[in-house]
Amino acid sequence: MIILGIDPGSRITGFGLINSVGGRKIEYIASGCIRAGTGELPERLETIYKSVSELIQQYCPQEFAIEQVFMGKNADSALKLGQARGVAILAAQLASLPVHEYAPRTIKQAVVGTGGAGKEQVQHMVQRLLKLPGLPQADAADALAIALCHAHTNASLISRAGLKTYRRGRAS
Amino acid sequence: MIILGIDPGSRITGFGLINSVGGRKIEYIASGCIRAGTGELPERLETIYKSVSELIQQYCPQEFAIEQVFMGKNADSALKLGQARGVAILAAQLASLPVHEYAPRTIKQAVVGTGGAGKEQVQHMVQRLLKLPGLPQADAADALAIALCHAHTNASLISRAGLKTYRRGRAS
Repeated sequence: MIILGIDPGSRITGFGLINSVGGRKIEYIASGCIRAGTGELPERLETIYKSVSELIQQYCPQEFAIEQVFMGKNADSALKLGQARGVAILAAQLASLPVHEYAPRTIKQAVVGTGGAGKEQVQHMVQRLLKLPGLPQADAADALAIALCHAHTNASLISRAGLKTYRRGRAS
Repeated sequence: MIILGIDPGSRITGFGLINSVGGRKIEYIASGCIRAGTGELPERLETIYKSVSELIQQYCPQEFAIEQVFMGKNADSALKLGQARGVAILAAQLASLPVHEYAPRTIKQAVVGTGGAGKEQVQHMVQRLLKLPGLPQADAADALAIALCHAHTNASLISRAGLKTYRRGRAS
């Protein structure tokens, strides 16, 4: 199962693609940043939308995962982030990809083991888990962490579903 | 010149279409609400995006106008609004429509004559200016007001450009 993780931003949107083989083995496929540029808002949104659509076309992921955002502070930043997030989710939806949202704490918990982990800890654990030759760029690392979180959650769901089936089998 | 005005919202997006004939005469074309429904976020964003795209295809506007948002209060609402706003702007951008943004005060100033006007005053003035048989629904009225503001701004720009040419002609 190929998972596309997206860390949206009004200027830089990180992306990460991994292949989760049967929930046990995880392979790195690609990662990087979509730079929306310094143009007008409509052009920046078009760049994000088209780039995410192209990634979906090129790598054919089966699942799409994105960070759930809670912004307590700045409403202006939240609006800008929302615009970028909206067009990224739209690209997934129009390609009929299931969209999964994960809270930042859940992502850090899944990748680092603690919900309060810092950016650098995430980068280091992503590098280790995916056996990357170097430290991934921060936005790309966040996107890979989101994809890893989804792979992990999905794998636990599969194993839990398996356990349930097994128990049912024993009871009947 | 046909203008599409959009008042985006995560649940209800108002739209208004007017025809500005030479900047003097303004005709009402259509208005209404896009209801994004109560489904999951990706489906709601798809509904907004596809509905705006369909309006563009059906009425072939030459200009797109949307409210510039400043939200001082709630970051969570700003994020939701941003997502809706992002996909509406994307629909215009992908149809190669020029996107114009107007501050709420500018819109009220253009339509009612005072930047601090209330929602009902906007509804009444929109009804009067467009000679509508009844009071338009609030979100549709806001969208029509945005379109009217753009028509007004465009007309003053045209007349100012004309004046400048005339003066230049006299000076030479």
